[in-house]
Amino acid sequence: MADSLNCDLKSLSPLQLFERVTEQGEKVRALKAGKAPKDEIDAAVRMLLSLKLSYKTTTGQDYRAGLPPKDLVVINNGTTKEEDEDLVDPWNVQTSNAKGVDYDKLIVRFGSSKIDTDLINRIERATGQKPHHFLRRGIFFSHRDMDQILDAYENKKSFYLYTGRGPSSQAMHVGHLIPFMFTKWLQEVFDVPLVIQLTDDEKYLWKDMTVEKAYEYAKENAKDIIACGFDVNKTFIFSDLDYLGASPGFYKNIVKVQKHVTFNQVKGIFGFTDSDCIGKISFPAIQAAPSFSSSFPQIFNGKENIQCLIPCAIDQDPYFRMTRDVAPRIGQPKPALLHSVFFPALQGAQTKMSASDPNSSIFLTDTPKQIKTKINKHAFSGGRDTIEEHRKYGGNCDVDVSFMYLTFFLEDDDRLEQLKQAYTSGELLTGELKKVLIETMQPLIAAHQERRKQVTDEVVKQFMTPRKLAFEF
Amino acid sequence: MADSLNCDLKSLSPLQLFERVTEQGEKVRALKAGKAPKDEIDAAVRMLLSLKLSYKTTTGQDYRAGLPPKDLVVINNGTTKEEDEDLVDPWNVQTSNAKGVDYDKLIVRFGSSKIDTDLINRIERATGQKPHHFLRRGIFFSHRDMDQILDAYENKKSFYLYTGRGPSSQAMHVGHLIPFMFTKWLQEVFDVPLVIQLTDDEKYLWKDMTVEKAYEYAKENAKDIIACGFDVNKTFIFSDLDYLGASPGFYKNIVKVQKHVTFNQVKGIFGFTDSDCIGKISFPAIQAAPSFSSSFPQIFNGKENIQCLIPCAIDQDPYFRMTRDVAPRIGQPKPALLHSVFFPALQGAQTKMSASDPNSSIFLTDTPKQIKTKINKHAFSGGRDTIEEHRKYGGNCDVDVSFMYLTFFLEDDDRLEQLKQAYTSGELLTGELKKVLIETMQPLIAAHQERRKQVTDEVVKQFMTPRKLAFEF
Repeated sequence: MADSLNCDLKSLSPLQLFERVTEQGEKVRALKAGKAPKDEIDAAVRMLLSLKLSYKTTTGQDYRAGLPPKDLVVINNGTTKEEDEDLVDPWNVQTSNAKGVDYDKLIVRFGSSKIDTDLINRIERATGQKPHHFLRRGIFFSHRDMDQILDAYENKKSFYLYTGRGPSSQAMHVGHLIPFMFTKWLQEVFDVPLVIQLTDDEKYLWKDMTVEKAYEYAKENAKDIIACGFDVNKTFIFSDLDYLGASPGFYKNIVKVQKHVTFNQVKGIFGFTDSDCIGKISFPAIQAAPSFSSSFPQIFNGKENIQCLIPCAIDQDPYFRMTRDVAPRIGQPKPALLHSVFFPALQGAQTKMSASDPNSSIFLTDTPKQIKTKINKHAFSGGRDTIEEHRKYGGNCDVDVSFMYLTFFLEDDDRLEQLKQAYTSGELLTGELKKVLIETMQPLIAAHQERRKQVTDEVVKQFMTPRKLAFEF
Repeated sequence: MADSLNCDLKSLSPLQLFERVTEQGEKVRALKAGKAPKDEIDAAVRMLLSLKLSYKTTTGQDYRAGLPPKDLVVINNGTTKEEDEDLVDPWNVQTSNAKGVDYDKLIVRFGSSKIDTDLINRIERATGQKPHHFLRRGIFFSHRDMDQILDAYENKKSFYLYTGRGPSSQAMHVGHLIPFMFTKWLQEVFDVPLVIQLTDDEKYLWKDMTVEKAYEYAKENAKDIIACGFDVNKTFIFSDLDYLGASPGFYKNIVKVQKHVTFNQVKGIFGFTDSDCIGKISFPAIQAAPSFSSSFPQIFNGKENIQCLIPCAIDQDPYFRMTRDVAPRIGQPKPALLHSVFFPALQGAQTKMSASDPNSSIFLTDTPKQIKTKINKHAFSGGRDTIEEHRKYGGNCDVDVSFMYLTFFLEDDDRLEQLKQAYTSGELLTGELKKVLIETMQPLIAAHQERRKQVTDEVVKQFMTPRKLAFEF
């Protein structure tokens, strides 16, 4: 009994242990209040002490009622973070460093793994394709269990891709394309099904927006996503407001996750308070559920346990840490993850590009002239104050936003390296570097706009209809 | 501005006001922490003081951070209830009084209205039918806005009925039939659509039970409900686990309710704690949503704003107090309610009949012999200790469970009155009264069992398929 308890406790996260101690404390109090037999109270107290000991062994902290374990709070709660730490959660990205967030530190804090050369080489071997420049250049820099996905793939066991977007407005910016461009590549090289969640319910809950507006934005955003070139036979795009009411499998997984996550846990992970609405508090389960194949019986022929791989920006990781914590307790495999860096704002890498600040963003609807003006006017430069100084000391690519954007959008490795050397040596001026960026972005966005025009409401409807895809399960 | 604020505040409940003060306090702290301009801080502080004043005016209490207004906490939280108060919430019914819960006090505490002779007469006039004995005998004793339902009905404006059941086990007892028997009568005399919610998701969240088991119980319970004689053309029965994934309208209403209720509010109303799972915390919205006709577009032809009337036991009122609080804020009519008393346990009216205690319950599956044994052995008697004393002083119908059950199930008013007089005078002995009850219950339950046998899986499927009913909207 004691053995099986300890074994059981070892599989628990610090927060789950915290819960267990709290519950046991309440049980002891109830037994005492109810004047239960002495041996029953004694047994409950012994269990409480044993739980407190496990808690201390696991967390290195004494149990304190009402105070969840510190490490999980630090990650996301701006008010308790240490002075020199970057703030990274699903709603905020902020750092004092012009080079941007310290991603190596983030890997340690989040407990994920670095995507190293070995892993990149392995992806190349498994797929027989040159790795995407987002991998080669460290734009997708962190992962969870990608090696397991490859193990299984090499043994002919398939998986599926899941990514998403919160449709907060009609306007998508170039940064929003990053996960979709990469996901499209993954889908092509691995040839697997893809599900894309549009969290219109989340946007309704968080923003001053009607349900109808949120759904409209979801359908508009779907057009930009489809314009990235996804294959309708292999891809299912869904709005939560739509699909939750169209799939019993999806809701069953949501309610299973909701049963296994407490308010204490979401408070620790997402920083929710007692004044938050119950919709926000339960929403994380809705972002978690598409990680389980049984949410899509029409695609997976009712099969559970098809492994899921989630490419996303690292700020979404808290949702999936929670999901991975719950998965084994509801008999599901943990989703694997690939994390990208943030796409920096035009003004500098201290924050990510945000659609709510038009000056920080290049929108997918911008004209060539707007693109040119925004880059020339707002893109933070790593160049020197005068031409003379620039020629003498050279520019700093580490903080130069134009150069950063080129790492995202200029596919030619040799050209990028030439530009870096020329800018660093002072040979290339800021205006010239910006010109290269402008000439890269203008055709890229024009082509996107051209493809988007082809995406009719009928095409959106096809993508968003629950159906079988071109895969057998 | 000030006027519109005050006007706005007047429409808020104490808990909503509490929220507003809390939020404003947080805003002031954030402004100060962020070193905002002085006039901005001053304005926020003035607003805070004004809100605190409104709070005090409305509640008669000073605002205290973290302590929601007392009146709402008292109702449902056993630990803070006053010594002589009955405990009544969706999970517990407990009183120290052998006559049962003091329902007049409950009306005052819950802020509902008594169903008086005037209202009963009005129902008789509106329907042209003799009022059901549950109305005549005060078994349905309290209401909210039933007069508005009648106003509208008299003006040829229809409404719909909504009731439900939590399928916690296969075994339903006779007490579970009360709301359904009354609902059936209401449906017949008013000729309106009826929706019946089976909260299998709730049972999965609260009990140690799989999703599959909860759904199985829902379908089994549906058979007993259908056996009450509902008309398949006028009645839609749904399992949450099923219907939530089959109706976009239902989920949209759920998420709307979830946006407008905070954790503070459900903590106050239902006594949830930080250790509760997020599923429980958000569940009240799922019981709320069927109060809005847009949750059933297939029945109401997509029409919103069809008025809803909910017959239920009074312990379910907290859900609908919350629903009525939210309704105007999401542009929906408040549901009206008819509240019943609890069905007493065999052992006495201090608690309600509970399926988890077989000795407290007469099950719908009991044999004539089991019914006889249970009543003879367990039904609490208001008779005297000896036959001599009984003949001399008479029995006490107010605490006699057999007599109470007869008020529920013996339709003949004259016979019931005769029994009362005979028992009170001492002419009728306890054993004789029990015999009348046994002879009333045995054929009633046998007939139920006979009707239940006719309810095939196919019939259940018909009732549970989302479809148009025999009404035009």
